[in-house]
Amino acid sequence: MNLLINGINGKMGKTIKELAIQDSYWTNVYGLCRTIPMPADDIKFDVMLDFTHESSLDRVLQIGLDRRLPIIIGTTGYSEEQNQKIKRASTKIPILHATNMSLGMNLLFALVEQTAAILGDKTDIEIIEAHHNRKKDAPSGSAVTIVESIERGLGEVRPHQYGRFGECPREKGEIGIHAIRGGNIVGYHEANFINELESIKIVHEAYDRKVFASGAIEAAKFIIGKEPRLYSMKDVLKI
Amino acid sequence: MNLLINGINGKMGKTIKELAIQDSYWTNVYGLCRTIPMPADDIKFDVMLDFTHESSLDRVLQIGLDRRLPIIIGTTGYSEEQNQKIKRASTKIPILHATNMSLGMNLLFALVEQTAAILGDKTDIEIIEAHHNRKKDAPSGSAVTIVESIERGLGEVRPHQYGRFGECPREKGEIGIHAIRGGNIVGYHEANFINELESIKIVHEAYDRKVFASGAIEAAKFIIGKEPRLYSMKDVLKI
Amino acid sequence: MNLLINGINGKMGKTIKELAIQDSYWTNVYGLCRTIPMPADDIKFDVMLDFTHESSLDRVLQIGLDRRLPIIIGTTGYSEEQNQKIKRASTKIPILHATNMSLGMNLLFALVEQTAAILGDKTDIEIIEAHHNRKKDAPSGSAVTIVESIERGLGEVRPHQYGRFGECPREKGEIGIHAIRGGNIVGYHEANFINELESIKIVHEAYDRKVFASGAIEAAKFIIGKEPRLYSMKDVLKI
Amino acid sequence: MNLLINGINGKMGKTIKELAIQDSYWTNVYGLCRTIPMPADDIKFDVMLDFTHESSLDRVLQIGLDRRLPIIIGTTGYSEEQNQKIKRASTKIPILHATNMSLGMNLLFALVEQTAAILGDKTDIEIIEAHHNRKKDAPSGSAVTIVESIERGLGEVRPHQYGRFGECPREKGEIGIHAIRGGNIVGYHEANFINELESIKIVHEAYDRKVFASGAIEAAKFIIGKEPRLYSMKDVLKI
Repeated sequence: MNLLINGINGKMGKTIKELAIQDSYWTNVYGLCRTIPMPADDIKFDVMLDFTHESSLDRVLQIGLDRRLPIIIGTTGYSEEQNQKIKRASTKIPILHATNMSLGMNLLFALVEQTAAILGDKTDIEIIEAHHNRKKDAPSGSAVTIVESIERGLGEVRPHQYGRFGECPREKGEIGIHAIRGGNIVGYHEANFINELESIKIVHEAYDRKVFASGAIEAAKFIIGKEPRLYSMKDVLKI
Repeated sequence: MNLLINGINGKMGKTIKELAIQDSYWTNVYGLCRTIPMPADDIKFDVMLDFTHESSLDRVLQIGLDRRLPIIIGTTGYSEEQNQKIKRASTKIPILHATNMSLGMNLLFALVEQTAAILGDKTDIEIIEAHHNRKKDAPSGSAVTIVESIERGLGEVRPHQYGRFGECPREKGEIGIHAIRGGNIVGYHEANFINELESIKIVHEAYDRKVFASGAIEAAKFIIGKEPRLYSMKDVLKI
Repeated sequence: MNLLINGINGKMGKTIKELAIQDSYWTNVYGLCRTIPMPADDIKFDVMLDFTHESSLDRVLQIGLDRRLPIIIGTTGYSEEQNQKIKRASTKIPILHATNMSLGMNLLFALVEQTAAILGDKTDIEIIEAHHNRKKDAPSGSAVTIVESIERGLGEVRPHQYGRFGECPREKGEIGIHAIRGGNIVGYHEANFINELESIKIVHEAYDRKVFASGAIEAAKFIIGKEPRLYSMKDVLKI
Repeated sequence: MNLLINGINGKMGKTIKELAIQDSYWTNVYGLCRTIPMPADDIKFDVMLDFTHESSLDRVLQIGLDRRLPIIIGTTGYSEEQNQKIKRASTKIPILHATNMSLGMNLLFALVEQTAAILGDKTDIEIIEAHHNRKKDAPSGSAVTIVESIERGLGEVRPHQYGRFGECPREKGEIGIHAIRGGNIVGYHEANFINELESIKIVHEAYDRKVFASGAIEAAKFIIGKEPRLYSMKDVLKI
């Protein structure tokens, strides 16, 4: 199979290239970026990975539609209108769009949703995430997705408590969200479901930033040969 | 609703009684044991909980069948023949049989099975359990069930490694199982799925031995009004 | 030896009585409270434990001074003037004053101070504490003492960050302090020292509220026969 | 200052070079190995780091003695006779010899010794270490040093239990030692001191193998200008 990476000189593009080259599944790994022109039409790809910028969406979808190519989109920040464009294109070609392609993290999203659906009403829910000391914002995007997954499991949105100080009795049902910052931590997320008698804790730890590139490659292998549709990482994981 | 506890003077029976009495769901809580005769026929129960001894199975099933009463069986150590008797009785009355009725632990069994099905082939699996320093055997029954759940998810039985010492390179696919013993730890179980780039850890902690009695009462509430069938804690959890 | 518990009907007093009665070290365990008069002068005690109210300090010290009795004071909330009274009395009788008498927690205070002194400048420091969902304030008193111990080790006071939300880049040197609330957690404290290459984590977990009573009894055994002086739990631990 | 690395082409030598070059403390970083001759006598070094092979000890000591140069020796596997040679040389030049130069790990050794001295008699001690799935032996060398540090704190050697299976009641005083193997884990060590009421856990995690090189460079900075003597990492940490 042949892989086309759009955004080959970006951080993610470079890491994907590095991993894909070592992976015998791929016969050829091609790259594309602003300064690298599209390969000639007689060069065949089986799937395109896009890690570029929201502004290049039209070009990305055009390449896919022209060549009937499945696309994995890892780019973030699209407008609602752009999301609709992706949806429309996915009626003609298979598209997978995800903002975090780590397999383990996506599995965690499913596990916390299920746990919330089953034990959520009987437990106090507290999230801890930890990242390197240069991260500017909190909580992490993945922690937000964890909270959303939990609320989907619960069937309702809950109040969020970002840290506690002073008089701050725990409101029934609130979800605590705590952001640790230190050293060079790649990514640690922990969801706690605690009651008087027992607790469940589900933890994901990313050891290496390559985990996102690796998941993108898994997604690319998954989508080859699939029917046109909008896919998510849950489909890759078969959850 | 009215509850009948068989084995009211045993450790579990006492704890169940204590919790049920405080629970407004139950109008009356009746007890039964070797020295306490069966209440008169005109006293009505809605469900019976059995925490006695394998030798009293026939009597237990008879009470249930005579009164068309659902039964929760927490007694362990049945022979294959006895398990068949339970199965036959369950065609006439609803029966739930489980050896660990903690809701959280049963949820953990489901979560590790699912994780193993999805990430098992890509990860090294290591189990850690911790219990009080008076526990005589290892691993715990729940750790064994965790391993069985993982192997169900994997679709195959794997070699087990109980601790490591000396030259002991990790065999591909082996499941490591480690038993910590110390203090008065009620029950701690942790399943790790580790690969080069990321890990998932799922942890259950029992804070209080009441958690098993509490789960039995949940099971009793669940089974009232159900169709005759053999149920498990997964049905209670709706997994 | 004979033990006198002041505040025998309080929560701590009751637990201390319960533990002391089972402990063959003590021949007699006497109690005192507002409604129980002081035992007659010919009844001999070897040590007094005070868990009452700041307002009874004068009476407590008087008993100790009159009988030349060592005193363990676990009462909190004294004014500066009262602390001076304790100090003056300690020139005549041995007094130990501490707000948390868990041996493990007091050891933790020493370990985090030492770690901060050695690695503090090279690490990002983040504290996590967890308590039951009925606790009204945050952070816990013990977490505050952990931070103070760390700052003693560092030789300077640092900015404190109680949770993070939105744009909140980690300020160099700040100490993060995070309060988890859930279920019936007795008391969990964790101090993390994290840098790019490695981390040290020191954790104390209280399993049972008896741990504070048990430490008070250890302190009582320690102080019998000591010289007049103001002691702390560090003396009991011989740190 | 100028640094001389003996074994510049080995794994550790390369990493030390990489870190030292980026560190403005060092004006020049020189290398030495079997195929790189000793720099001319008029080139001045302030300290030598040796990560070579036990067989080159004589040459290493000769360089140090000839030039009155302090030496950091990270090479392992010396005979008793060779250790004596190091000791004799250290009467003339400052020498530090250590097998694990991570600052955090060496601090952990001190913390567990202190904890064992204070709480060891009152607690059950259990060690967990985790390393990558290619590690051939168990427990890790650092876990062995942790156990030795604990036994120094306890003032006695204890029975060791490497995993538990079947009938294996915890023997009073035994130290449990558990080796997890999975993925690419760099190095995780955890010492637990557990009793009925509370526990202390002290954890070291190495995120990057550079941590050993970084500690070696700290040791090199420390030893410059010191009196002739045999030093250890405890001296670097000022414990």
